[in-house]
Amino acid sequence: MAANTISLSISSNVATSKNLNSLHSRRFVAPPTICFPKSNPGLLSFSSTTSRSPVRASASQLMNEPLHDQRSLTSPTVVEVDLGDRSYPIYIGAGLLDQSELLQRHVHGKRVLVVTNERVAPLYLDKTIDALTRGNPDVTVESVILPDGEKYKNMDTLMKVFDKAIESRLDRRCTFVALGGGVIGDMCGYAAASYLRGVNFIQIPTTVMAQVDSSVGGKTGINHCLGKNLIGAFYQPQCVLVDTDTLNTLPDREMASGLAEVIKYGLIRDAEFFEWQENNIEALLARDPAALAFAIKRSCENKADVVSQDEKESGVRATLNLGHTFGHAIETGFGYGEWLHGEAVAAGTVMAVDMSYRLGWIDESIVERVNKILERAKLPTTPPESMTVSMFKSIMAVSLW
Amino acid sequence: MAANTISLSISSNVATSKNLNSLHSRRFVAPPTICFPKSNPGLLSFSSTTSRSPVRASASQLMNEPLHDQRSLTSPTVVEVDLGDRSYPIYIGAGLLDQSELLQRHVHGKRVLVVTNERVAPLYLDKTIDALTRGNPDVTVESVILPDGEKYKNMDTLMKVFDKAIESRLDRRCTFVALGGGVIGDMCGYAAASYLRGVNFIQIPTTVMAQVDSSVGGKTGINHCLGKNLIGAFYQPQCVLVDTDTLNTLPDREMASGLAEVIKYGLIRDAEFFEWQENNIEALLARDPAALAFAIKRSCENKADVVSQDEKESGVRATLNLGHTFGHAIETGFGYGEWLHGEAVAAGTVMAVDMSYRLGWIDESIVERVNKILERAKLPTTPPESMTVSMFKSIMAVSLW
Repeated sequence: MAANTISLSISSNVATSKNLNSLHSRRFVAPPTICFPKSNPGLLSFSSTTSRSPVRASASQLMNEPLHDQRSLTSPTVVEVDLGDRSYPIYIGAGLLDQSELLQRHVHGKRVLVVTNERVAPLYLDKTIDALTRGNPDVTVESVILPDGEKYKNMDTLMKVFDKAIESRLDRRCTFVALGGGVIGDMCGYAAASYLRGVNFIQIPTTVMAQVDSSVGGKTGINHCLGKNLIGAFYQPQCVLVDTDTLNTLPDREMASGLAEVIKYGLIRDAEFFEWQENNIEALLARDPAALAFAIKRSCENKADVVSQDEKESGVRATLNLGHTFGHAIETGFGYGEWLHGEAVAAGTVMAVDMSYRLGWIDESIVERVNKILERAKLPTTPPESMTVSMFKSIMAVSLW
Repeated sequence: MAANTISLSISSNVATSKNLNSLHSRRFVAPPTICFPKSNPGLLSFSSTTSRSPVRASASQLMNEPLHDQRSLTSPTVVEVDLGDRSYPIYIGAGLLDQSELLQRHVHGKRVLVVTNERVAPLYLDKTIDALTRGNPDVTVESVILPDGEKYKNMDTLMKVFDKAIESRLDRRCTFVALGGGVIGDMCGYAAASYLRGVNFIQIPTTVMAQVDSSVGGKTGINHCLGKNLIGAFYQPQCVLVDTDTLNTLPDREMASGLAEVIKYGLIRDAEFFEWQENNIEALLARDPAALAFAIKRSCENKADVVSQDEKESGVRATLNLGHTFGHAIETGFGYGEWLHGEAVAAGTVMAVDMSYRLGWIDESIVERVNKILERAKLPTTPPESMTVSMFKSIMAVSLW
């Protein structure tokens, strides 16, 4: 049960502790009973008789469900993000877009603007509109379909959202809905934060990356040509609805990209989760529904816990940036859209871990474990060959915010 | 002492009560001792032995100062905006830019970005930089000089602020300073709200309009080609520094424009202040320092009081929009920059008052008083001839947010 993994310094974004058992044992002094049934023997089992922190209270619930029981999977797991009067639930489960009451309870007003992109719209826009309007004829839904990709996460694209909202004469009592991956969530969230100085919004993330990371915690924004996410707002949604069925249409490369963030949670604060991942990475890549649901929930719990402690990243929240300083440099230097975010984070994580090892802060065994799990997840473990040291230095001098 | 003036309905932005003595007497059940000395006999005197609400606690202080005593004028009057952990002071007085400690105590970090425009920069930028750095060599100041005018209050101009901040590699611990009128304050504030998801900022308003209205209360933002202030944020400054000396360089037309907002406070919630204005409008136009200082302070007190009750305009704050619904339509229909904001508000106020009268909500005498004081202030009391009813209807259908 002993875990040997990594923590990060907040300031330098590199690993800092040789022996993190103590850290993790403090965080997980009371791990839950987590047992997968024998029908799924490839997954690791932990057990403990003590209770967990509130934010993880429902973790064992899903893990104890029989796998492949669709009835239980459609009953959402709820992770609460505790932010006082800005608190909100994350619903996780299969088929949640078919449960219109979940979404409708968080819609304010009678006017909704769905913000999505060219790839997601043909797959899930009709389903989302149906979920918003079924049995609710007073609600009218507008939609704006943006081009797909990180390179469009900019002011020009954001203006298309404002244009649509204004042309549709939406007033302050409208609700914006982000339907798509992280780029859509970040842009829709920032548009909601800024439209008429703030309207309500809902996140419906359709990628692993968005489901485990970008949709949770209220970081919204757009890129500038000189760096990522330099313009934005901290702005919390009314709810996050994670329908794991949407992952059925996700390309393999994007699936792997999202796992980079899942792995990050294990590395920075959840040793048992990291061990679980080491034993289940192939199940995740094969989209085993129960494995995915557990990984998403556990990731959201970790993120919600961090965000609740430090909403505006004045301290511990910066640990979530493991691999992101190098990763952002790769994305900036290589051009947005060449590498997926998680791919850059994976290579950046290896670089951060390598630096920590060279500084004598962590054992070589950790470097090996990080490399190994990322390789098994089909993620890059080295930066693009064309990225020179001087390119990293130049970009990171701006990126180190 | 009885006042006969106007209140507005929040929803329709028109006057709603025939007899507002009761409203005003509730608000001013405890008016202060306010006496101008005999050396300034043109100004009206009120008196009362009861105390005022906290936000007006210092009102009598300035009014009891001997006029033209420069020493006393350089000692700032302070109006507190009470917003919990987002509370901040408004400093009002002559020569405050010479008191570097006032500004420096609110600067966070060692890097400052002054946002100003082509008209204000030659007049006050050096003075502001001196105030920020005098005896404080660790602070470095960057500046960005924007084109002047409402027609530049848009996304393209805003991006110049982000560009400068990013090129200067400012991090989260920097401070933005808005030096200029309402357009600069609104844009700098929104830039501060959005840069790296929020950095500190300070308002140094240099017009009456900005000093009595736009710099106070945290409304920031930019225009869209289809309407004013449709994109923005509620974002509060660290402080507002009103150096009344900056009004010495203000063109007469802009001076009058600012008085439209001063008059508004009298109309919506401060009968005694309105009466005082009726007796002192020429002193204000002649830039009598004590009259100006009193009008600015009393206006800020009124605004701070409203904002403290309703920061995000879910209720009473909407009363501050008297004349603005029609006024925004004039600005939008006529093209930003043709009329100054206060000029449009003045004509819009007459339209709102006229509508209220036609609806039977107010007496004719109020219509006459409003027309008269606006005319004396050299402000327009009718919309541009080219604005047709159908233009108003079309624009206001979008503007009615």
